[in-house]
Order: sequence, then structure tokens, then C-alpha cells
Amino acid sequence: MNERGLLIVFSGPSGVGKGTVRREIFNTPDHDFEYSISMTTRKKRAGEVDGVDYFFRTREEFEKIIQNGQMLEYAEYVGNYYGTPLQYVKQTLDEGKDVFLEIEVKGAAQVKEKMPDGVFIFLTPPDLDELRERIVGRSTDSSEIIEKRMKIAQKEIEMMSFYDYAVVNDKVSLTAKRVKDIIAGEHFRVERVIGKYLRMIQEYNQ
Amino acid sequence: MNERGLLIVFSGPSGVGKGTVRREIFNTPDHDFEYSISMTTRKKRAGEVDGVDYFFRTREEFEKIIQNGQMLEYAEYVGNYYGTPLQYVKQTLDEGKDVFLEIEVKGAAQVKEKMPDGVFIFLTPPDLDELRERIVGRSTDSSEIIEKRMKIAQKEIEMMSFYDYAVVNDKVSLTAKRVKDIIAGEHFRVERVIGKYLRMIQEYNQ
Repeated sequence: MNERGLLIVFSGPSGVGKGTVRREIFNTPDHDFEYSISMTTRKKRAGEVDGVDYFFRTREEFEKIIQNGQMLEYAEYVGNYYGTPLQYVKQTLDEGKDVFLEIEVKGAAQVKEKMPDGVFIFLTPPDLDELRERIVGRSTDSSEIIEKRMKIAQKEIEMMSFYDYAVVNDKVSLTAKRVKDIIAGEHFRVERVIGKYLRMIQEYNQ
Repeated sequence: MNERGLLIVFSGPSGVGKGTVRREIFNTPDHDFEYSISMTTRKKRAGEVDGVDYFFRTREEFEKIIQNGQMLEYAEYVGNYYGTPLQYVKQTLDEGKDVFLEIEVKGAAQVKEKMPDGVFIFLTPPDLDELRERIVGRSTDSSEIIEKRMKIAQKEIEMMSFYDYAVVNDKVSLTAKRVKDIIAGEHFRVERVIGKYLRMIQEYNQ
């Protein structure tokens, strides 16, 4: 049976460690979904690779893609664009494979409107003091930007109610396992599989 | 933080293999929930132990417990009572531990009314011909009872829509893993954890 894949939307406040958890998930062999690489106009950080961590593009290039309607979601965040190219997501779901998006909170809200049957997973910090430390640890940010990020993070945590799951990022390996358990379990949600079983009864009685 | 445990309700048509899957789940060390032993008036099958697989009781004893309001759910099924003693379930949830019930479909519907925030997992056969074979394999049943069971099974599968999850029992070890993944993931449902995070923000801003 050729069923459509699950769309997995992994989001959370900036600085919470989404990228680290996502890399941990994809570094272990027991996952069974495809990663959709985001596009951004922000500067590459040390260790990041174009086409692996993000597609790094200029503002001009990014805006052209938006205008052509080729973004599933995008957002401007502290002066930079972040977004998800649409084509890869659609095609992979149609092939029956699950797609994993790691995106910003504003973008996740757009996906929720367009594809509400996705699985929405929110990554939270163990506590807000620790989140502040993580943001400070990124030496590229000024203290003004740090305070701005903290205000945004609190607003974002309050948006958790639009998600299906919330996972705390206390220990990366444990957090990655939680996300994988959630995705494994979601495949068995009744609303996703009931059609198959009702057809089974029909066929038995024919 | 002393949170209430999850109530896990594991059900499905008679003959589908609920008991086998439940034993597999509890035989592996990586589960973290308590099994609520059901009470029944049906005869002990080979290998079953009183107080381990079921509490085996007479009809008179069972009916007295019902009258005293000490059953979370009960049902009469092909001439026998099956039920869940209430006290153990309440106490264990209050202690913050998860409770696992393996019960009949009629009983699960009663629990759904009383405790709708439980996690309702439905076990299905790979197909109905195989279910028939399994029921026939239990030599205690007459052919009339077998046909009655098959009709009931089809009606029960149609009741799947009242459940949260449906899992196919194709290979016991795999099926047990699916159930454990579902339970692991359910702990992170937003509606179960959001209160904790909103308190975290309040405390940070004090």
C-alpha cells in the first residue's frame, strides 16, 4: 500500500539546541525519515556546510524564491531569512517517506496552517537561565540581541499549545531518543490507519 | 514534581493476542509502568496463574465486587465476567506511576467514559482470516462460539475510532516495541506537560 509519509515539524526557541538534537537524530542509524534542508540568509557558523546544515543564500536569491511561491514556510528572524523549499517536501511525502523539518517557530506556524496533519514537536530548554547561557555562548550575538532573543524565546514557549508534543533538551542523546519515540508512535495514530482496517473488513465480507 | 501517572488501556478483539503481547512487553526490562491484573470468572487456561495472569474468581465473588462499586470497568463476554479492580489503578496513578490495563473492548469503552485522558491502544489482527485461525486454535471453543467471536471481532474493529492508536499484531516482539514507543511518546503530549513550562516562565520573571 502506497501511503503518504508523515511530515515532522521540529521547532523551538532560538538557542535551545534544535540543530544539535537534529544532528544526533540523523547520526544514529535507527531513524527512517528524510531531512529537509532549510534555506537561510544568515552567515555560516564554524563547522556548518552549505547544502548540509542549510542552503546559504543571499537576500536577493531568497526573495526571488519567495516570489515564485516555492517556499513551504519562511520567516525573517533577527535580520535574516529562514525557510523551507516546498518541492522537496511534497515530492518526498508523495513517495511515502517521512520528512523531518527543523525550523523556526514562526515558520512552524505557517506549516501548521498549510499542513495541519503534520506532527508538531516543540523543543524546550530545561530552564530559562540555561537558555540564556547558551545564547550568550554564541559569541556572535551582542548583549542587546541576547535580551531580544530571551523575550522572543518566552513568547515562543507560550506558543507551545499549538504543537502536539513538547520535549525538553536536557541531554542530547536522551532528547533525540524521545523525538524518535514520538515519531514511531505517531505512525499508529488511529486517524492515520483506520481506513486500512475498515477496508480489511470489507474485503473479508466480500 | 509529583505528576500523575498515565493510564494505558490496551485492548482489541478476543483472539488477537493481547495477552501474548502484554507478556512480551513486561518480560523486557525497558518498560516503566505497572500492570493492573484483571479479574475474571472464566476458567484458567494451561499455563495461567491466579494473581499473575488474572485474579480467577467465582461469579458470586465477582458480582459482590461490582455491587460494592470496586470495579473500574467490567464486561460479560461469551458467558464470563472480566473486570479491573479500581483501587489498585487509582492508587498507582496517584503515586505518579503509569498503569497498564489489558482489557476487553467493552470494558475499554467504560474506562474511556470515566478516564478520557488515558492512552487508548487497539490491537488488530494482520487480517481476519488469521484471526479466525487463532480463535480455532484455542480448542476450548465450539464452532458456534467461533462464528460468534468473528462477528464480535468485526464490530470491535469498527470501534477502533474511539481509540488513540491502532497497532497490528504481526510479529510479537515488533508489536511490543510499537506499544512501548507509543507510551514513551505520549509522555510528551503538549496537553500533559504545558503547565510545567508556563510555570517555568512565571518563575523566571519573578
